[in-house]
Amino acid sequence: MQRLLSSEALKRHGEAVRLAGWVHNIRDFREVKFLILRDRGGLVQTVIDPGARIDMTRIGKEYVVELEGKVVPEPRAPGGAEVHIGTLKVLARAHEPPLEINRPQVLAKTHLDKILDHRPISVRALPIRAIFKVQAEIIRAYSEYLRSQDFTEFKSSKIVATGTEGGANLFQIEYFERQAYLAQSPQFYKQTMVGSGFERVFEVGPVYRAEKHETSRHINEYTSLDFEMGFIRDEQDVIAMQVGLLRHISEEVARTCAEELKLHGAKVPVIGDTIPQLTFKEAVQLVEASGHRLPAGDLDPEAERRLCDWTLKKTGSELVYVVGFPLAHRPMYTYFREDDPATSRSFDLLFRGLEITTGSQRIHDHDLLVAKMRERGLDPELYQSYLSIFKHGMPPHGGLAIGLERLTMQVLGLSNVKEATLFPRDRHRLEP
Amino acid sequence: MQRLLSSEALKRHGEAVRLAGWVHNIRDFREVKFLILRDRGGLVQTVIDPGARIDMTRIGKEYVVELEGKVVPEPRAPGGAEVHIGTLKVLARAHEPPLEINRPQVLAKTHLDKILDHRPISVRALPIRAIFKVQAEIIRAYSEYLRSQDFTEFKSSKIVATGTEGGANLFQIEYFERQAYLAQSPQFYKQTMVGSGFERVFEVGPVYRAEKHETSRHINEYTSLDFEMGFIRDEQDVIAMQVGLLRHISEEVARTCAEELKLHGAKVPVIGDTIPQLTFKEAVQLVEASGHRLPAGDLDPEAERRLCDWTLKKTGSELVYVVGFPLAHRPMYTYFREDDPATSRSFDLLFRGLEITTGSQRIHDHDLLVAKMRERGLDPELYQSYLSIFKHGMPPHGGLAIGLERLTMQVLGLSNVKEATLFPRDRHRLEP
Repeated sequence: MQRLLSSEALKRHGEAVRLAGWVHNIRDFREVKFLILRDRGGLVQTVIDPGARIDMTRIGKEYVVELEGKVVPEPRAPGGAEVHIGTLKVLARAHEPPLEINRPQVLAKTHLDKILDHRPISVRALPIRAIFKVQAEIIRAYSEYLRSQDFTEFKSSKIVATGTEGGANLFQIEYFERQAYLAQSPQFYKQTMVGSGFERVFEVGPVYRAEKHETSRHINEYTSLDFEMGFIRDEQDVIAMQVGLLRHISEEVARTCAEELKLHGAKVPVIGDTIPQLTFKEAVQLVEASGHRLPAGDLDPEAERRLCDWTLKKTGSELVYVVGFPLAHRPMYTYFREDDPATSRSFDLLFRGLEITTGSQRIHDHDLLVAKMRERGLDPELYQSYLSIFKHGMPPHGGLAIGLERLTMQVLGLSNVKEATLFPRDRHRLEP
Repeated sequence: MQRLLSSEALKRHGEAVRLAGWVHNIRDFREVKFLILRDRGGLVQTVIDPGARIDMTRIGKEYVVELEGKVVPEPRAPGGAEVHIGTLKVLARAHEPPLEINRPQVLAKTHLDKILDHRPISVRALPIRAIFKVQAEIIRAYSEYLRSQDFTEFKSSKIVATGTEGGANLFQIEYFERQAYLAQSPQFYKQTMVGSGFERVFEVGPVYRAEKHETSRHINEYTSLDFEMGFIRDEQDVIAMQVGLLRHISEEVARTCAEELKLHGAKVPVIGDTIPQLTFKEAVQLVEASGHRLPAGDLDPEAERRLCDWTLKKTGSELVYVVGFPLAHRPMYTYFREDDPATSRSFDLLFRGLEITTGSQRIHDHDLLVAKMRERGLDPELYQSYLSIFKHGMPPHGGLAIGLERLTMQVLGLSNVKEATLFPRDRHRLEP
């Protein structure tokens, strides 16, 4: 007999089925024992009749079992049916789990460090498993939408000879006889691919920041959803592409992850044809009028929260772009407004109080880029490989990056980005 | 007017169109000049009439231009039409390219090192661009098929505290106050995810081997297409999944990359319901009978070629599995045949003379795995994090990994895996 998933079996009233999975729970009443079986399809209630010759003393929670039985309608059981077990076989025994993975309320109060220390076990809890189902769907919908817009996926090297922006916060690697670094972003490579004639490219890959941050928003290794596109008029073309992209992701996650969203009491954002935009100057005025002092040239986390609150009240949107950051506070490759050269053609996207994207139009003229490097005190000699792509015909272009874990965190309303990272790396954590 | 791609414009006979792209070539006859424009859609012939007021002396190869003109049927032009230019605007100037990117025959004779040194430019050549279009389609079809089989995509960390198999060939990282390493494979993580209840998972991500190889088959960083599945009977379930997967990839690449395959004179392999299998013992006998001596316990590249030749002649298949390698020559987590404990439940897949996959059923019993570690002289204490997943209920499982660049190379008949790597890393190459 072919193994069925629990979700399938529950529909086969009256049929004999074969199931396999983990013992999620055992409920032992005098008359009858219930074994709740968990598989990748969900949970199913199975029943061991007192007459069945199954020795339940040799079975415990998280044992892996295979069973055959008959599906019987039972209105009181989750899914409207239960499986009366005929035979049961143990595939693998299990120690008592170190976490209460079948009691979401208890697990929710467990310290995050303990959850992460026991990541292989904590993912078994359905609300935690749901996080990574949603994350997988975000990757799928992201790639699917960009392909529909004629973007090509590519894979760039994560081992680089120099940093993207001057060498701070790099992890160093012993690379044979040389020193190399872990890539902070595929920025140079995605621009290269635009100039190589692909015009529209995307990458889903890891990036590294050797920052000593210990906040709920930072990790030292994360998955960056990058795209870059050529032949744009300005940064608004990049923004328009992202609006369509995020709408697709939202719709797809809502469609395929209804159960998972419910487990977190979460709703995806509703995204229309546009997302509201504030200029950096407007944003600063709003934040300062609300009584919060800002550092020069940038927004801080408190400002991001206030801007989202304001936008939600004013427009109903849970997302807001801030455009036109001061050029001096953006990377050297950032384009500027011709009518206001101190203002960049860059933007951040804030979602429910957190920055999840940074993007911009990039400089495509070689000599201008060299001049901008010099203004920043960067030595163009160290960027010869990057600069070469601008010598041979580079179209106007721009792009952005979305932090996958931050987006997952905000969609589900989690409180720490590490909750949305399977195997997070921080200053103290290298395992599991 | 909206920009059209060349491939679209060629169908709009009689219409006014706007195009943008790179100047692929200029052909200057006394009467008329032709400008061949290249964009992500391909090539289009455009015509500058002598009467048009366009100063062609200020335009060179690889300039980025935008033009408007009228589509005129012309049977002698590629695509059956040409565009008569009305206006032309330069978006970016270009130095003379360092490679003959518009002359495939000349480029084919260029030394690979030069092609790689100038990767941003060499990708502009249509046969080289085709390689990475095919590669993108392989990733898409791989992910699509596994999702259709209920696999979930995940992302694991590439920074690890210890190596997967004992610590050789690892790149070392300065990780804050500690030493860490670049992951050689997501092996432990994909097993973890099976045990975490996802049961069926896949990853597309970079892996690292600090090997000093200098061959046409090795690179120090490559993209690994990994999958792992639980609740299998034995390694044959993993093989059956891969057969369906490879058939889907083959069919999809044939469907979406007809032009790209043609540029390389390549055909995808025809894959039926099964792929032939040889046992390791049979393989050794065949190779030695053909007059080639083998190293103990393994196949070498010459053996892989001979086995593929033999299989092709005998069965018509361009792929062949070798199953049942000696257990002692496989990783410690490899399962064995109960009827022959010195023989592993592992396999290699050979394709057109090259190994592109290694896989196996894995040991899922904690105590057995510890015993196998001890037999190999590995200290179980160093693997506590990995071993913990086997303490809490791990189903029978197995999986495999496909080298993306090797698969791309073999599909297109390339002679070096670096040709199928956008930004290859070897002992001497860290840029671009």
